Amino acid sequence: MRDVPDEPFPGWDPPPYHVDDRGKVVGAEPGPRNNWGRFGDLDQIGTANHLTPERVAAAAALVKTGKRFSLALPIGPPTPGGYRSEPLHFYGMAAGDGVLGSGRGGARYPVSDDYIVMALQASTQLDGFGHVGGDSTLYNGYWAGLVTATGGARRLGVHHLARGIVGRGVLLDVARHLGAEHLEPGFPIGPDELDGAAKAHGVTVGAGDIVLVHTGHVGWKLGLAPGSPEATNRSEPGISTRAIPWLHDHDVAMIATDTAACSVVPPEPGDEFLTWHVAALRDLGLLVGELFDLDELAADCAADGHYAGLFVAAPMPVVGASGSPLNPLFVK
Amino acid sequence: MRDVPDEPFPGWDPPPYHVDDRGKVVGAEPGPRNNWGRFGDLDQIGTANHLTPERVAAAAALVKTGKRFSLALPIGPPTPGGYRSEPLHFYGMAAGDGVLGSGRGGARYPVSDDYIVMALQASTQLDGFGHVGGDSTLYNGYWAGLVTATGGARRLGVHHLARGIVGRGVLLDVARHLGAEHLEPGFPIGPDELDGAAKAHGVTVGAGDIVLVHTGHVGWKLGLAPGSPEATNRSEPGISTRAIPWLHDHDVAMIATDTAACSVVPPEPGDEFLTWHVAALRDLGLLVGELFDLDELAADCAADGHYAGLFVAAPMPVVGASGSPLNPLFVK
Amino acid sequence: MRDVPDEPFPGWDPPPYHVDDRGKVVGAEPGPRNNWGRFGDLDQIGTANHLTPERVAAAAALVKTGKRFSLALPIGPPTPGGYRSEPLHFYGMAAGDGVLGSGRGGARYPVSDDYIVMALQASTQLDGFGHVGGDSTLYNGYWAGLVTATGGARRLGVHHLARGIVGRGVLLDVARHLGAEHLEPGFPIGPDELDGAAKAHGVTVGAGDIVLVHTGHVGWKLGLAPGSPEATNRSEPGISTRAIPWLHDHDVAMIATDTAACSVVPPEPGDEFLTWHVAALRDLGLLVGELFDLDELAADCAADGHYAGLFVAAPMPVVGASGSPLNPLFVK
Amino acid sequence: MRDVPDEPFPGWDPPPYHVDDRGKVVGAEPGPRNNWGRFGDLDQIGTANHLTPERVAAAAALVKTGKRFSLALPIGPPTPGGYRSEPLHFYGMAAGDGVLGSGRGGARYPVSDDYIVMALQASTQLDGFGHVGGDSTLYNGYWAGLVTATGGARRLGVHHLARGIVGRGVLLDVARHLGAEHLEPGFPIGPDELDGAAKAHGVTVGAGDIVLVHTGHVGWKLGLAPGSPEATNRSEPGISTRAIPWLHDHDVAMIATDTAACSVVPPEPGDEFLTWHVAALRDLGLLVGELFDLDELAADCAADGHYAGLFVAAPMPVVGASGSPLNPLFVK
Repeated sequence: MRDVPDEPFPGWDPPPYHVDDRGKVVGAEPGPRNNWGRFGDLDQIGTANHLTPERVAAAAALVKTGKRFSLALPIGPPTPGGYRSEPLHFYGMAAGDGVLGSGRGGARYPVSDDYIVMALQASTQLDGFGHVGGDSTLYNGYWAGLVTATGGARRLGVHHLARGIVGRGVLLDVARHLGAEHLEPGFPIGPDELDGAAKAHGVTVGAGDIVLVHTGHVGWKLGLAPGSPEATNRSEPGISTRAIPWLHDHDVAMIATDTAACSVVPPEPGDEFLTWHVAALRDLGLLVGELFDLDELAADCAADGHYAGLFVAAPMPVVGASGSPLNPLFVK
Repeated sequence: MRDVPDEPFPGWDPPPYHVDDRGKVVGAEPGPRNNWGRFGDLDQIGTANHLTPERVAAAAALVKTGKRFSLALPIGPPTPGGYRSEPLHFYGMAAGDGVLGSGRGGARYPVSDDYIVMALQASTQLDGFGHVGGDSTLYNGYWAGLVTATGGARRLGVHHLARGIVGRGVLLDVARHLGAEHLEPGFPIGPDELDGAAKAHGVTVGAGDIVLVHTGHVGWKLGLAPGSPEATNRSEPGISTRAIPWLHDHDVAMIATDTAACSVVPPEPGDEFLTWHVAALRDLGLLVGELFDLDELAADCAADGHYAGLFVAAPMPVVGASGSPLNPLFVK
Repeated sequence: MRDVPDEPFPGWDPPPYHVDDRGKVVGAEPGPRNNWGRFGDLDQIGTANHLTPERVAAAAALVKTGKRFSLALPIGPPTPGGYRSEPLHFYGMAAGDGVLGSGRGGARYPVSDDYIVMALQASTQLDGFGHVGGDSTLYNGYWAGLVTATGGARRLGVHHLARGIVGRGVLLDVARHLGAEHLEPGFPIGPDELDGAAKAHGVTVGAGDIVLVHTGHVGWKLGLAPGSPEATNRSEPGISTRAIPWLHDHDVAMIATDTAACSVVPPEPGDEFLTWHVAALRDLGLLVGELFDLDELAADCAADGHYAGLFVAAPMPVVGASGSPLNPLFVK
Repeated sequence: MRDVPDEPFPGWDPPPYHVDDRGKVVGAEPGPRNNWGRFGDLDQIGTANHLTPERVAAAAALVKTGKRFSLALPIGPPTPGGYRSEPLHFYGMAAGDGVLGSGRGGARYPVSDDYIVMALQASTQLDGFGHVGGDSTLYNGYWAGLVTATGGARRLGVHHLARGIVGRGVLLDVARHLGAEHLEPGFPIGPDELDGAAKAHGVTVGAGDIVLVHTGHVGWKLGLAPGSPEATNRSEPGISTRAIPWLHDHDVAMIATDTAACSVVPPEPGDEFLTWHVAALRDLGLLVGELFDLDELAADCAADGHYAGLFVAAPMPVVGASGSPLNPLFVK
């Protein structure tokens, strides 16, 4: 076999900190905008705390026509801009096999049973709080070392969000507001763009809202020729770190975009690739949705002028997971 | 290697039928109770057609307190009564690795990314219409041979249900109604038990309802010693084939139980193992939910006397799949 | 969710043949060059029958220096020219987790345990006889319908080859013989090239030989810039259908190349993409190896002038599989 | 969803050591019997160093009749005594689908393509040196923290053994020597049993030998009723820690048994569960084989009186893996 060189290893020194029996790095500090401790010292669900029963009931009351939208990408076709290997879908048994006399039931009882192998964040998805940390810490000061292959996310697992993300969904169609079919890759969305779209739509973003930012990016990507430079380019429009205070001030429960990274790619000057994720996930404990498909909803909102509705999304309750596929629903 | 004998093969004769270009077996007939053609000749979503916008809006209006329930089992712990291999959950990257200097970001940007390998019906789940057929046909007369390893479910894939199952959920607590903590394995639930529970609860099952039948079975199973005869026994309480006309007459949109098979196991005299599934999935095109965990909801309903609420469940839109994990939510 | 259109379906008529209880399509005929029935009516291992104990012993006697070569590609780096998704390698437990206090043993007993998800033919591999057939039949007249998702390869599974491919390996360095570092994509290797290389090397290909044809293709591919047109192009040098009689006349046990398809791609005029595979696998029952890495061995043979040695490769005995990864060894 | 309680966490203190840029824990010490440094400070293949070309050539010369044995268990049937989830074998395409008109080629070119999901150590297998360590170190003083989900085994990956384990195989039939069809679970095999069997067989274990110890255990397990207490019991006969000096003194290249753990289970008094593995893998860098199926070979050796032959086993060269399935061949 041809040689597979070992990667250089720089050595390793033990970190200077200790971890207490709550799983917190002793002395760790969050960034200036943060929710550490706000929802309790042992809180593991962050801004999902904003989804109070009262707000859930108020969101349900927004439903008028009962028209439903799925904000998910189909799982199967290639995922635009995805960072992970494509899901593999297998039939362990296929009903057609019965026609061929295979299986216990044969043609009399044809049975199908299928499996999926997928990155939990390969398609439309929720970032869990174990997904990205900074300086050895995760949301609320939990230690990054709590997430291991052996133990999974020993804290902050996505299963803590099993009761779902239910509340008032607000679509901010930044692309339409700016007169674009889709925002250019690299276009940063800051407070001005968010406020501008909200004002144009006649909605006010409030505490506990699920903010859905339409850039048109994923729909545009889906129309590109596979393998073309534009299709393989990772640049995306997305949320700026300048919007972090806005998200914090408004007590937004969730932010989601129709892009792979939610944050703008490449990052703005002064930021690194994960700066936004650290601020959102680690510091704020903010629910972050990615690869939402908002085109159909955006067209409908533009048509009827109603940008708020009932949003419901329920993660797969994989114990100790750091993310989950979502099929988010929006009901008007 | 020790010998692995080939299984005997009985030979094979081609079937006598033809399949038309709609994918229908020419001349195929459903059972006496059926919805073939009712929702259109090419319909692929069966009783999901009962979930009209009006009914969705009416269901949303049931929400009073905003109290939420997840009806899912956690994915990770062993699944009681499951028929499939347990899900495998892997971390391709774990935040803890960053503490060990592994990964691009090291301890500065610890990143987790995880994968799941699972049978789509391994836990709380929805049966798709490709899952079980009878006499070489699936729901609405589609050919069982349409479901193959190569092509997936070329018709009736679960992705057609992407917009979710949203409507009025009604809990029928048959166990409590009959004064049992859990129904005995093998106990069949027929129209009398369903009507009796509904009457006791003061609810009337109507068109488009999502009927959740609480047997207490899964909760009981979870408390058994692993490996004990009761834990490994496949017998379950469940819905009788005698309830098929009831489900049809009431235009129920979905039936779900806190058992692995929904139907009673072993089947009642005169039925085979899959008789109920053929009648429900193939003939009615009925949405069937399994391994729901209804204990918490049932206790709450018993406490407040309200057995109806908003039910929302969104399948993973895996193209051509024959089932999907669900994290069903119930909102009061 | 955006629409996922159903693929058109042309309808289906039952085939005109019957399958007997041996699994044979009644009346099926192989191509003009074939081994159907030659090794027995129920034979499932094809030209592996040429690997008689006497030939194995004679091959072992070729070993002089004990110098070993692995002809495998490493599993992990991208596979050049691969037709399948890349293998996924996961750690369910990682020794490093023990350093983080995770796992039963912690740092005292750090334990690793890893998993692979891979196409059995994703890297250096053996084609099983279930892999490709023609006109509804596989090798020896077995019915293609014997291979199903439910039952696996009910006949011709690769586990029948568990005792391995052991015999005289002969390297034919067609590239060097023709003065090329690597043969051009699309270059067809016929009897003249095989005979020419053998003559130049001073070897005579005989019954039961494992013939390894060096084209230099995979090594060249590995040196290309990822994503470049040459890297993504599927064209390859490879074995011509004109070589099928040569392989048959010489009673070759196995043919393997350092390309993804073994056969030349695109196929020569008059051939379809799978014509060669049908002739080799279905008609001859020939062992076919793909994605072998022969560069190191070829350089050594050129240096010492010895082109024959002991070849040993043992498939993973996956019951009912249609292929297997191989780590083929060559010992001089 | 019912509550999934977090596991208690005891806190974490950073370890007191440093790791140098070779990946070695500074100041780490092996057990009294060890090969640290013996094959070079940066050696990653341990006792595979004993497999010199001369010994390989001498082993090849042992081949007389060319009779071959596979020492693998089939992959598919349940693995007796396995510690891991069973492999999953999926057809992404099945030739039978072509009969149903599915796939590009339809019945004209039926194609199968299959996948495996498996623990690398789920069946007959080789332990890599990343598999088990002690006191934060692996073989040759490498740091356990080098093995992570993100980076795999950054040192000591099983791909370093790609050239295979080729040498003189010696079967020690301890069961037959002691007059047993199979050794009792818990029976420890020490130097006396190994020497006794060797003497009875007329073989002398020498440097570089691959020692195959037949206990009859796996064959016995395969005959038990599934689910019976004996079938689910984890106790096994196996190698005693008292045999570690014997293995070291004889410069054995590999030890393998027809049991799941190689070492005796439960361990002898004074040992913990992994004591033997730490001594073998971490201290000696000894190749360890598990779940070998030796019944057929043992019967043949008893019949012809020849207990030595050519052994060949080639791991799957998964880069950075901590183990590999093996299909070991033995040629007489």
